[in-house]
Amino acid sequence: MDLDTTPALLVDRDVLDRNIARMVASARSRGMSLRPHAKTHKCLEIARRQLDAGARGLTVATVSEAEVFADAGFDDLFVAYPLWVDTARGARLRALTDRVRLTIGIDSESGARQLADHAGTAIGVLVEIDSGHHRTGVRPEQAGTVAKAARSAGLDVRGVFTFPGHSYALDAPDNAARDEAGALATAADSLRTAGIDPSVISGGSSPTALLDVPTTATELRPGVYVFGDAQQLELGAAAEADIALTALATVVSARDEVVVLDAGSKALGADRPAWATGYGRILGEPDARITALSEHHATVHWPNPSTRPHLGQRVRVIPNHVCNAVNLADELIAVSGDAVVERWKVAARGCNT
Amino acid sequence: MDLDTTPALLVDRDVLDRNIARMVASARSRGMSLRPHAKTHKCLEIARRQLDAGARGLTVATVSEAEVFADAGFDDLFVAYPLWVDTARGARLRALTDRVRLTIGIDSESGARQLADHAGTAIGVLVEIDSGHHRTGVRPEQAGTVAKAARSAGLDVRGVFTFPGHSYALDAPDNAARDEAGALATAADSLRTAGIDPSVISGGSSPTALLDVPTTATELRPGVYVFGDAQQLELGAAAEADIALTALATVVSARDEVVVLDAGSKALGADRPAWATGYGRILGEPDARITALSEHHATVHWPNPSTRPHLGQRVRVIPNHVCNAVNLADELIAVSGDAVVERWKVAARGCNT
Repeated sequence: MDLDTTPALLVDRDVLDRNIARMVASARSRGMSLRPHAKTHKCLEIARRQLDAGARGLTVATVSEAEVFADAGFDDLFVAYPLWVDTARGARLRALTDRVRLTIGIDSESGARQLADHAGTAIGVLVEIDSGHHRTGVRPEQAGTVAKAARSAGLDVRGVFTFPGHSYALDAPDNAARDEAGALATAADSLRTAGIDPSVISGGSSPTALLDVPTTATELRPGVYVFGDAQQLELGAAAEADIALTALATVVSARDEVVVLDAGSKALGADRPAWATGYGRILGEPDARITALSEHHATVHWPNPSTRPHLGQRVRVIPNHVCNAVNLADELIAVSGDAVVERWKVAARGCNT
Repeated sequence: MDLDTTPALLVDRDVLDRNIARMVASARSRGMSLRPHAKTHKCLEIARRQLDAGARGLTVATVSEAEVFADAGFDDLFVAYPLWVDTARGARLRALTDRVRLTIGIDSESGARQLADHAGTAIGVLVEIDSGHHRTGVRPEQAGTVAKAARSAGLDVRGVFTFPGHSYALDAPDNAARDEAGALATAADSLRTAGIDPSVISGGSSPTALLDVPTTATELRPGVYVFGDAQQLELGAAAEADIALTALATVVSARDEVVVLDAGSKALGADRPAWATGYGRILGEPDARITALSEHHATVHWPNPSTRPHLGQRVRVIPNHVCNAVNLADELIAVSGDAVVERWKVAARGCNT
């Protein structure tokens, strides 16, 4: 591959397009719309491919991510986060509502009032519920209470959403999908009891989004599925043929069964859930494991001597958590086969606010 | 504090300067020079403070970090990494040698030949040895063999270096410092046996750098000590009064004994060694723990109801591993007491190549 230097993040454009198409088709076949989470790729070019394939709007995590995509013309954005809106953030949201159909997450009555007070009421909201991940969100049966407070504050309550993040554990995705379906149904009923008809019932995570579990959800918001990563592999949510993003790395040191690569936590991210078998995988070498990770070193145990790379050789690393890897890079290098075909700026890199 | 938005990385400038001065004084009192690792801060302003306080040159991890500091006039740089130097990287190194006294790490005979072939011989080298971390570096008694190969290739062999990274474990720093001292002495002897007198014998890590262990080292290269972090706290290498960098974060969700902050792994980094008690600490609240971390959420178990913050309140988070937190930010906000005094660009952010 004609690349001067490593580490570099490569995106196999053919695999990417296949992942994008499959998720749209899967959601459509079950009567749901797809609003992919753009925090994974942070790239305008990939977001356009998702919309061109049939996705309806984008999900983002922060106001600054919304600003980047709005500046590029994306006009239907959901900030899937219970923002605490003060004067400064309120002014930024008001500026967005001029040009974007904007929806924001809320998970408290006071958060809803803050939003209305500082950003105005030209904003839709979805009430976040906890479907088992125990991060943010109210209990499903409390959704109506928060929704009524939001409506009293003048906000347009459009429905409910959840993130079934407890799908990120071994053997967990199927149960998490069922928890999600149950919680969303309860929350939607809670809104109806409060006199509010939910037009959006939104869920989804990459480990659960392709599972055919009965649900009343109207919308899915997976993010990681566009690229896949080592976590999805180990959860059984992706096969190696679905991995679109890898970090190209060079062997800088070697001894016995170990090679050390020049891609560390500042290129791959430091994610390593307790259930993971290592800090990342090697494309095409299922028995190799990254057993230690420093900022610029990946220590790889590579048992097969016939494939073990020598000093100076390049290999492709599958990061554990691709969202954090992408957020460390300034650009993604799109390839088709062994040819570099495009370079995509990580336009929303570092957009944490 | 007069800051519009969160998350944001704050540096207490007074604590920073105290940390900088203490390390210089400690090294000097033991007859060693200090070459701090700039990968931690990646800031020109902080590097200048280190040199002004008495540090001798900088350590960096990559060629692109060296380029950033060289462009700003820093003229004595050690790349503490066994670079694999191909044509492209060789050209970049040649361009640096015009204006910088440059030293590079090597840990193989073929790596040394690559360096000489592609970057020329106007470069000094230190042979990297493994003092117990088992990452890169040759065994101490092999240092002379690599040094002779480097000298045969025409390189200026200046000495040996190691990183005692096995100091990053509970109760490990003291033993790691002793391992380091023994390994460096053996490696220096190995060079002398090969007819090369080492002028630089370089070691150091933040958990070990202040320990008064007898050593023949001439130079220390700690990085994290400027800021401190939750890892250093838990290793006993820093007290809370030594913590100079925190992430200002806002409470966005709350329930029972839990508050959720808007600083996640995209602001703090995802580091969590097995021995750590959580994903980070809260300044001034030693019993609070970050028990889960998503990209934009820190889930904090906060047992004390009288200090537990309410929705919208701001708190200061101590990241587990400050080097990875800094590399996610575009700027550091320097404060003195509660006043913002300067803004420092993270000039070498993302410099992985």
